[in-house]
Amino acid sequence: MVTQYIFIYCSAGGLVAYSESKPYNGLSSVDSSQVEAKKKRVVVLGTGWAGTSFLKDLDCSLYDVQVVSPLNYFAFTPLLPSVTCGTMEARSIVEPIRNILKKKNGDIQFWEAKCVKIDAANKRVHCRSNNSMILKGKDEFVVDYDYLVIAIGARANTFNTPGVMEHCHFLKEIVDAQKIRRSVIDCFERASLPNLTEDERKTALHFVIVGGGPTGVEFAAELHDFVCEDLVEIYPTVKDLVKITVIQSADHILNMFDERISLFAEQKFQRDGTEVKTGQRVISVSDKAITTKAKADGKVSSLPYGMVVWSTGIGIRPVLMDFMQQIGQNNTRAIATDEWLQIEGCDGIYALGDCGTIHQRKIMEDISEIFNVADKDKSGTLTVKEFRDVIEDICVRYPQVEQYLKNKRMRNVVDLLNDSKGNERKKSIELDIEGFKSALSRVDLQTKNLPATAQVAAQQGAYLARCFNHMKASEDNPEGPLKFRELGRHQFQPFRYKHFGQFAPLGGEQTAAELALPGDWISIGRSTQWLWYSVYASKQVSWRTRALVVSDWTRRSVFGRDSSRI
Amino acid sequence: MVTQYIFIYCSAGGLVAYSESKPYNGLSSVDSSQVEAKKKRVVVLGTGWAGTSFLKDLDCSLYDVQVVSPLNYFAFTPLLPSVTCGTMEARSIVEPIRNILKKKNGDIQFWEAKCVKIDAANKRVHCRSNNSMILKGKDEFVVDYDYLVIAIGARANTFNTPGVMEHCHFLKEIVDAQKIRRSVIDCFERASLPNLTEDERKTALHFVIVGGGPTGVEFAAELHDFVCEDLVEIYPTVKDLVKITVIQSADHILNMFDERISLFAEQKFQRDGTEVKTGQRVISVSDKAITTKAKADGKVSSLPYGMVVWSTGIGIRPVLMDFMQQIGQNNTRAIATDEWLQIEGCDGIYALGDCGTIHQRKIMEDISEIFNVADKDKSGTLTVKEFRDVIEDICVRYPQVEQYLKNKRMRNVVDLLNDSKGNERKKSIELDIEGFKSALSRVDLQTKNLPATAQVAAQQGAYLARCFNHMKASEDNPEGPLKFRELGRHQFQPFRYKHFGQFAPLGGEQTAAELALPGDWISIGRSTQWLWYSVYASKQVSWRTRALVVSDWTRRSVFGRDSSRI
Repeated sequence: MVTQYIFIYCSAGGLVAYSESKPYNGLSSVDSSQVEAKKKRVVVLGTGWAGTSFLKDLDCSLYDVQVVSPLNYFAFTPLLPSVTCGTMEARSIVEPIRNILKKKNGDIQFWEAKCVKIDAANKRVHCRSNNSMILKGKDEFVVDYDYLVIAIGARANTFNTPGVMEHCHFLKEIVDAQKIRRSVIDCFERASLPNLTEDERKTALHFVIVGGGPTGVEFAAELHDFVCEDLVEIYPTVKDLVKITVIQSADHILNMFDERISLFAEQKFQRDGTEVKTGQRVISVSDKAITTKAKADGKVSSLPYGMVVWSTGIGIRPVLMDFMQQIGQNNTRAIATDEWLQIEGCDGIYALGDCGTIHQRKIMEDISEIFNVADKDKSGTLTVKEFRDVIEDICVRYPQVEQYLKNKRMRNVVDLLNDSKGNERKKSIELDIEGFKSALSRVDLQTKNLPATAQVAAQQGAYLARCFNHMKASEDNPEGPLKFRELGRHQFQPFRYKHFGQFAPLGGEQTAAELALPGDWISIGRSTQWLWYSVYASKQVSWRTRALVVSDWTRRSVFGRDSSRI
Repeated sequence: MVTQYIFIYCSAGGLVAYSESKPYNGLSSVDSSQVEAKKKRVVVLGTGWAGTSFLKDLDCSLYDVQVVSPLNYFAFTPLLPSVTCGTMEARSIVEPIRNILKKKNGDIQFWEAKCVKIDAANKRVHCRSNNSMILKGKDEFVVDYDYLVIAIGARANTFNTPGVMEHCHFLKEIVDAQKIRRSVIDCFERASLPNLTEDERKTALHFVIVGGGPTGVEFAAELHDFVCEDLVEIYPTVKDLVKITVIQSADHILNMFDERISLFAEQKFQRDGTEVKTGQRVISVSDKAITTKAKADGKVSSLPYGMVVWSTGIGIRPVLMDFMQQIGQNNTRAIATDEWLQIEGCDGIYALGDCGTIHQRKIMEDISEIFNVADKDKSGTLTVKEFRDVIEDICVRYPQVEQYLKNKRMRNVVDLLNDSKGNERKKSIELDIEGFKSALSRVDLQTKNLPATAQVAAQQGAYLARCFNHMKASEDNPEGPLKFRELGRHQFQPFRYKHFGQFAPLGGEQTAAELALPGDWISIGRSTQWLWYSVYASKQVSWRTRALVVSDWTRRSVFGRDSSRI
């Protein structure tokens, strides 16, 4: 089930927006619309999971497509922790974005630049090249759009903890992983120098990971394997001084997983000698030590370290923060979109992946309108038959209803209505507006945010590409659910995430996995490691990276990991 | 012949020096001699070709060995030009030095640090760790030695040309090659940006290589292949704007090779569209353009560029420059050693590889002493028989004699003596001191410096290791030639370089090679490319790098080169 990466194309909605390109005096502007006046201009910011998935599935012959990203490659980020210790080479998990684009029919342009400002009023983005030093003044340019797809990902979130930016490593990008790799070796070389005391050596070899999520845990596991399988042989004098500590603010590591997995991971780490400090919040990081405060008793302690990797969640990139201020959003986690991934209040601007969060409309906001639409005979009460006619549209528009039924182990809506009437089971039930409200009153509690994972981002990219591909056809034949506040139907089905499962590699050829839905099926051990290998190999974007990834695993098992500090 | 990397261990000479370790108050000192008082301490600076080859062959059970190098790996530098364009991955050509050392019997210590000062008077070297930022004050330490082996290589030589350090790339180290790779892609991404004029795009894609030696030529060829085989497909809009220019001060590129190879290379470059500007000296480099002066007519011209690679020869590293001032040497190319690789005037200090140059003793300096030793009956004249008795020692001590005979196509020394007597052929010839001087007068013109190549460095390392391994045995039974100024024999044979040939890859699966001795046999074409593959694969220091190198070649031929800018 997991080895096939099937995207479920739920669809509907998505407003069609169009604006004439406005003349602009000043910075030079990319106005390809003059050439092909009829094609709408789609500008994609970012070449991560969401952006690349969108571009791969988009029918590029329908649009004039431009891509802006400071990185000219796509990186298979789930393998980043493997890059930190040389289990995987960085180049094996990247694919040049131009390689991906050249396979598309249609003329896609790629600009290696950073978006520095989104100007929604004039429908244009301001970009700055990476080569600003050399270009001197010609490094900024402007790109006009009709549709803007923001898929710029997120930055590491320091929660404004002092010293984190200066002294910690992060694990978001390829360069981060490469830096960590060099830094691990640096610590070992430093600890091997002649004029250090035993304590100084121990400090140099104290690796601290802040954050007990999948990334932090996988890095801790990789590092432990690297030390035990490779470094002990070549640094024999210092091998016993290595210590790995994971600091987690919650009570367990991997707390988004089933608790059996959390427990297994904690036990494995204990056997390995990796210390797990739970219920600890980091309050500051200096160049020598990291200071934590216990949540339980408020006790403050200071740990001298050799290297810290900070992996505690994601924050909003500055350019998006600016844009959110422009449009009056003040989320702290990501920019809010509707269920069709369009940013609320911004026609034709979409946010995918880690930089966006779907703001699921609550059913209670529309409850009267739903009742009115459903009550066809305007009798003031809703029969089961009347309710049945609209329930499908309700479930598509408000997926929390389906989730609620599932969690309550109800077979269908009749049970839901019955439930509000005190578990009587009859088909003749009729509800007035108050009864209807009360039947659905607890449904909205099921709404929850999607996790910031590659899986979500990839599905969103594919979903949006499908919407763009069907834009014309669906104008006349809308595919989406009934509109309850207006006439007609939504143009597309809203985005619906299909969870295929999640892996948590724990080192030593042990991997835990949660498959299909959370808690549905968990799997731990060596066989899961092989499942992990096969899933990650099959999910690669090209045959080239697939071959490289497999050859890197082979190389590691034959020759071990390389410890050259390059 | 070339596929086997046989080192000829010529040997002799080499003074044995010993000094008690002196107490030292101040910086902490690595005084392992207290543990094993009897073993002499050998300190090796550098882990390049010379240092690594020395360490691989040294019998480490005989000595207390310490290695100091800022790089914790050995790099197979002849493949560096391949790394610049991604034909070869950087990691495939490096081997951790600790991997090499752990295979030796004996306890070898490695310090990842830079030697900052050689203190020959106290027989110690001062070192500074790479991690000086973090160690703060504990980054410096001192290592005492009995024998010091300097194998720190060379730096790029800018000939003090203004702007070179600031604006040019070099091609000496792994990091240089990685930077060049990123920079090439940068140029292409820059040239693809929307707001540049055609001229600006052309400038961005103008790649200039200064220096027409093997490294510069190979880089130019690699770059041409990278552009034609890989980049044209993914940068279709700018592919026709690329220009590669090689600037050479001499009249031909590859002028150390047979002229047929020079000519072939020049013709191939012309067909490829790579411009070769010979007889041009670079007088300055700015951030935008490189200024050259024609040797013939003094005409100055300025070339706007996108990227410059400077590859014009080698210079002395600052720490060695300081040491040379201490001991009163003022060579400009490298530190001078005697024929046993010992630095002149410094007992127990050796220089190997690019950082040293052998100062071959001239036969005319010792001519009277040689005559006296040879004239056994003290008759004042030398018979052919008397001469024959010492000629072998003379040829070992002064290899220019052998070279002279070979160049003059003389079968043996009798011909040499006859030659001075006007080509008479008789065995009864007798020479007085003046006749002897005149017979050998032109011999010293044959002396020439060895090239700064991996082959020379590797042979020197292996040679010195053998001397160290036989140190004890040869004290009683010296292996070297007769001393002419003193009694007895030299302890070891002097170092003798055996040239196995040299390759010049020219791109497009074409390689030129000069095998055995210069001019003896040249080979050009596709079959030579395969010879190059097999030689370079067989010369790898470990099975790991061998497998990686071969798999990189395979990967390149299947998938092409990666153009991600990481």
